[in-house]
Amino acid sequence: MKTSRRSAVDPFIVMDVMEAARAAEAQGRHIIHMEVGQPATGAPRNARAKLATEMERGPLGYTVALGLPELRAGIAALYQDWYGIDLDPARVVVTSGSSGAFILAFTALFDAGAKVGLGEPGYPSYRQILSALDLDPIGIQSKLENRLQPVPSDMPEGLDGLIVASPGNPSGTMLDRAAMGALIDACAAKDISFISDEIYHGIQYEGRAVSALELSDDVYVINSFSKYFSMTGWRVGWMIVPEDHVRVVERLAQNLFICPPHAAQIAALGALGARDECDAHTQVYTENRRLMLEGLSRIGFDKIAPPDGAFYIYADVSDLTQDSRAFCAEILDKAGVAVTPGLDFDKQRGGQTLRFSYARATDDIIEGLKRLGDFMHARRG
Amino acid sequence: MKTSRRSAVDPFIVMDVMEAARAAEAQGRHIIHMEVGQPATGAPRNARAKLATEMERGPLGYTVALGLPELRAGIAALYQDWYGIDLDPARVVVTSGSSGAFILAFTALFDAGAKVGLGEPGYPSYRQILSALDLDPIGIQSKLENRLQPVPSDMPEGLDGLIVASPGNPSGTMLDRAAMGALIDACAAKDISFISDEIYHGIQYEGRAVSALELSDDVYVINSFSKYFSMTGWRVGWMIVPEDHVRVVERLAQNLFICPPHAAQIAALGALGARDECDAHTQVYTENRRLMLEGLSRIGFDKIAPPDGAFYIYADVSDLTQDSRAFCAEILDKAGVAVTPGLDFDKQRGGQTLRFSYARATDDIIEGLKRLGDFMHARRG
Repeated sequence: MKTSRRSAVDPFIVMDVMEAARAAEAQGRHIIHMEVGQPATGAPRNARAKLATEMERGPLGYTVALGLPELRAGIAALYQDWYGIDLDPARVVVTSGSSGAFILAFTALFDAGAKVGLGEPGYPSYRQILSALDLDPIGIQSKLENRLQPVPSDMPEGLDGLIVASPGNPSGTMLDRAAMGALIDACAAKDISFISDEIYHGIQYEGRAVSALELSDDVYVINSFSKYFSMTGWRVGWMIVPEDHVRVVERLAQNLFICPPHAAQIAALGALGARDECDAHTQVYTENRRLMLEGLSRIGFDKIAPPDGAFYIYADVSDLTQDSRAFCAEILDKAGVAVTPGLDFDKQRGGQTLRFSYARATDDIIEGLKRLGDFMHARRG
Repeated sequence: MKTSRRSAVDPFIVMDVMEAARAAEAQGRHIIHMEVGQPATGAPRNARAKLATEMERGPLGYTVALGLPELRAGIAALYQDWYGIDLDPARVVVTSGSSGAFILAFTALFDAGAKVGLGEPGYPSYRQILSALDLDPIGIQSKLENRLQPVPSDMPEGLDGLIVASPGNPSGTMLDRAAMGALIDACAAKDISFISDEIYHGIQYEGRAVSALELSDDVYVINSFSKYFSMTGWRVGWMIVPEDHVRVVERLAQNLFICPPHAAQIAALGALGARDECDAHTQVYTENRRLMLEGLSRIGFDKIAPPDGAFYIYADVSDLTQDSRAFCAEILDKAGVAVTPGLDFDKQRGGQTLRFSYARATDDIIEGLKRLGDFMHARRG
């Protein structure tokens, strides 16, 4: 049997780093992990306790496709709490992680061949999911003076859709209300569907993140329990869609997914009541970020767009290398620190950038910075 | 914003039945559920116990995209046990339910516009998932003399793929070794990709189900923990792919899903060690089936293809109605039994068929048959 053309998606280069790190650990080396995009913490205690109870009370069969009504209501309440938005729970679609939300959003909005814009650097899977669905990803090279986020004047002609992320991955930069509004208006004027990836909301350091939903109801907003709620492996996320899209998305969800994982939905219900524990994680990231910004800049990684949220720092290392992949291999080998080359996020300029994640424990950050400092000191000779 | 053309998938008619049943129950009526396609039982005790332990031992972060290595090995061992096949665990892809497997298989194998054949009556989501992925579902009207399964002479010209299900839903009929082999050979001769949905394997009454993998390695085989292992809501399934497709499917899975739900993978590992409990469920279905075959035929629902597996009976009711939807509404209203009209499974002939599910407790089956008998008696006047 032959495989399809659309299945020929790019590999993740970070996987090579992770495999090299694993191999080094198997040989007994101690590696500091600054390559991974997930919290070191697990699901909140309350989430685990709720699932432990509920799974003994009755079978966790299929739920309705849009998710447990209590969970949809709980998510809607979060919008009141976080943004002061009165959101109808009927517009909340619980999904199999934000991954499931992307599949639903892209199939609900676009037919084969549609052009969907995305800022670069950005989350690499946008591009690959779009390709796998026979859509045409259009990379938009964002500028450092725009905090590595796209602006209306960057948008090429002929787009059918635009997806933005704030805070962004790998940059951690946010779109403020004016910047987000300008993009939404530009899209509305040209009938371009607007999708806002808000998966890092709640993990923020310089004021709060703005939701696209504060500015318009005619947008798709995607979020997840993976990051702020520290539940990556559970695969439960959500999407807010315009009222007149609910039935279409429901039918797609019934057929494409049947329902999001029931156990994860139960755990997510518990997590909604564990905000203190989640906020404590963000406190750790806040301290990690302070240490990273201070430490990296002292070491010589000083060309960065200061991250407003998420747990990443994206550094321009063009004065050190044009081959970030080889540079990461060198750092892993000599410093024992795993970091991600920018090539996954930006094919054009990613050879000159690195992404550092600070989602781990603070002690790891301190040790990682020390190792990176020694490495750079030795490298300068 | 506008929705895409491909998102205009058909609604499930059974949802109307379920909603009507729910409304009747909300008004205090007692309803026997013969419409649902899932076990009344939950995940095996061992599955829940394993998860309860593991989720307290460390964070359930992302797993690798193809699934936990122990789980892939355990699934491979099942093929030795069930079919005597020595299967390389590297060919096992753990998925987010069989739903996730369909999305991966269809995108890995087919480009937009490809024609994929499917037997009718059949699982309605095949058609809708294909449409949502911009593929062209080609219904093949199967014949009662072929036990409602497609045969090579039924296959139209120009197919790029064929998906079969044995045991089938809604019919429960199986393809024996000769019938399965004939379809695989016919596909191989014309370079048609062959996908075998084996989700009901393990739930069988007349000899064991044949896996496509016993006949060829150049096929996709899809299965799940939902039915035999009684874990519908957990959303964990698997797919066996040809060796030279593993990398392609892995990259798609990394991008489209990141990983299957970690908690469900842990529970699935526990379920693999709980075969006695699963076999006990099948014993209940065996008795239910005996009661149904005897009871339905006595009542007058006697035109059926005797089901070899799964937990459904598909009955031709053309001498009673040409409008199965209205007939189901009447049965629900007058008998208090929810059954599924055939229209979801076969647009052409489904107005004259019903699907009865016997996945519930035996007492429910007995009561349901009594009510159906009284209803038919009164209807005859």
